[in-house]
Amino acid sequence: MTGGARLPAAARALLSGDRRALARLMTQVENHDPAVLPVLRALYPKTGRAHVIGLAGPLGVGKSSVVNALLAHLRKLGTTVAVVAVDPSSPFSGGSVLGDRIRLERDPGDAGVFIRSMASRGRAGGVSAATREVVRLLDAAGFSVILVETVGSGQVDIEIRDIASTSVVVLVPHLGDEVQTLKAGLFEIADVFCVNKADLAGADLAARDLSELVGLGAPRDGWRPAVVVASARDGTGISELWTAIAAHEKFLDADPKRRAAAERTRLATELVELVRERYTESAREELSEASRSHWLDDVAARRTDPRTAADGIFERQHAPKARRRRP
Amino acid sequence: MTGGARLPAAARALLSGDRRALARLMTQVENHDPAVLPVLRALYPKTGRAHVIGLAGPLGVGKSSVVNALLAHLRKLGTTVAVVAVDPSSPFSGGSVLGDRIRLERDPGDAGVFIRSMASRGRAGGVSAATREVVRLLDAAGFSVILVETVGSGQVDIEIRDIASTSVVVLVPHLGDEVQTLKAGLFEIADVFCVNKADLAGADLAARDLSELVGLGAPRDGWRPAVVVASARDGTGISELWTAIAAHEKFLDADPKRRAAAERTRLATELVELVRERYTESAREELSEASRSHWLDDVAARRTDPRTAADGIFERQHAPKARRRRP
Repeated sequence: MTGGARLPAAARALLSGDRRALARLMTQVENHDPAVLPVLRALYPKTGRAHVIGLAGPLGVGKSSVVNALLAHLRKLGTTVAVVAVDPSSPFSGGSVLGDRIRLERDPGDAGVFIRSMASRGRAGGVSAATREVVRLLDAAGFSVILVETVGSGQVDIEIRDIASTSVVVLVPHLGDEVQTLKAGLFEIADVFCVNKADLAGADLAARDLSELVGLGAPRDGWRPAVVVASARDGTGISELWTAIAAHEKFLDADPKRRAAAERTRLATELVELVRERYTESAREELSEASRSHWLDDVAARRTDPRTAADGIFERQHAPKARRRRP
Repeated sequence: MTGGARLPAAARALLSGDRRALARLMTQVENHDPAVLPVLRALYPKTGRAHVIGLAGPLGVGKSSVVNALLAHLRKLGTTVAVVAVDPSSPFSGGSVLGDRIRLERDPGDAGVFIRSMASRGRAGGVSAATREVVRLLDAAGFSVILVETVGSGQVDIEIRDIASTSVVVLVPHLGDEVQTLKAGLFEIADVFCVNKADLAGADLAARDLSELVGLGAPRDGWRPAVVVASARDGTGISELWTAIAAHEKFLDADPKRRAAAERTRLATELVELVRERYTESAREELSEASRSHWLDDVAARRTDPRTAADGIFERQHAPKARRRRP
């Protein structure tokens, strides 16, 4: 498992710093190409070293600008950085809407940076397996920091906690009434709040309100979220933002059990999702069989209600195979 | 099944127009109270008569105002209307964020109107089973039109097609760059576009652009989406909006197979989701067993990768029970 000679060629290329091999593996992951599975398996022991930082927040708060500014800041510090932008995706095309049009400024010759856009959701809900696998490829490729940016959908935002060791929630001083309500979910995932657009009136007031709210709650697992005011456009506060993120990462490392426990929780969620994905395939297969055996006819004609039909399909598939064969 | 005497008391109360019984059943649905299941089963044959109209669109376009204006318009026509507002929900609290704070103007004494807020997502992704069941309760209670409003998350918006026979996508003349990208998904679900805030500059231009885009594509299942300009605030265009919605409903009824085929597709999706939900429960149970048998230990220590572990868990559970008992 650890001997380099036994690794698949694509895995060896990735580990040697071949960026085109990295990009090709990502494309295979996105296309659900089964040929990538042995490579992912071989690379898995090489992962777990990167700091995976999630950035979430409502549409229009300037998350991309914050990512851009953090990227520039980290490169100045000499840290290698990868960015994964998780886009809203159409369930029809299955593809990424933003595609490669991510608007990050970068030096194309800088091998210490890698940027990738991804479609947002797995078929069974939750952070897509593809997003996790792309992050692991970047981790194995040796990037020190991986910034995972969600592109503004409440549920996907909240699921960032399932992939990142530190979650940053980006907000602006003024948000509409509806967006305020989204905060209720976001509030619970934030390790760090970033109030962006510090130049807007009310930024300090918003930060003070947030700090008060944070102060009211009990610390979550011993950590009380930090609140940082920034202006990604001119770089104000970005150094402080990174300091706050790094402080949370240090907090995780302060007690060796703490980071391990957090990672174990994330892995448990991932396993449930992967097992569920397998079951979903079974459910779909069973339903096409079920159509033939008139479950759907009965429901459409209102002779059977959907739950009774679902129970019937489940019981039938779940029963021991021997019993199914002898009716 | 059809004899009133054999219906559960709560079902009889709902059918007799008892609004408090209706509200109580909805609360039971939201609380996953198993006592509601026989009532839902008994009422299922009484459903399928209401026109279920979905309204989706980005945050801040004034969907609630459009719903409000449609509600007032339909009441003037003498049509009974129910509104279900599907809210962004926190996966932590499980509850609805907006709660009962939906800002619809209504006459509290008007028995022809019923309004309910719901949490947005099922645990296994997709339109929550609870949303479908609340819509069915309203359908059985005799409301002619059920307006289902999503509160601004891309994925939930798109899933409105899984519940509504006509989907309305609400937009405003000017939207940010990121929101534009969301349209890519919304475009594919719209039976009717409503360009709201007609008083804003560019409304007519936006409507013309949309109409051109709609004209470029092939009709979907024989229907080409209508584009209506409205101003929900002063009621401009709301009558035209309803005419466009009603035209799509008439189109569905013009060929008797058309509505049946669309409903069958929605029911097939629902069955897959319900079966998946049952499998997800199994996956969770198996994982807690799996923790004991060290799957998670192996993944956390990077001795096994997550997919291999998930395959192991799945194969183990999926094998005939007899084989599992004798190792």
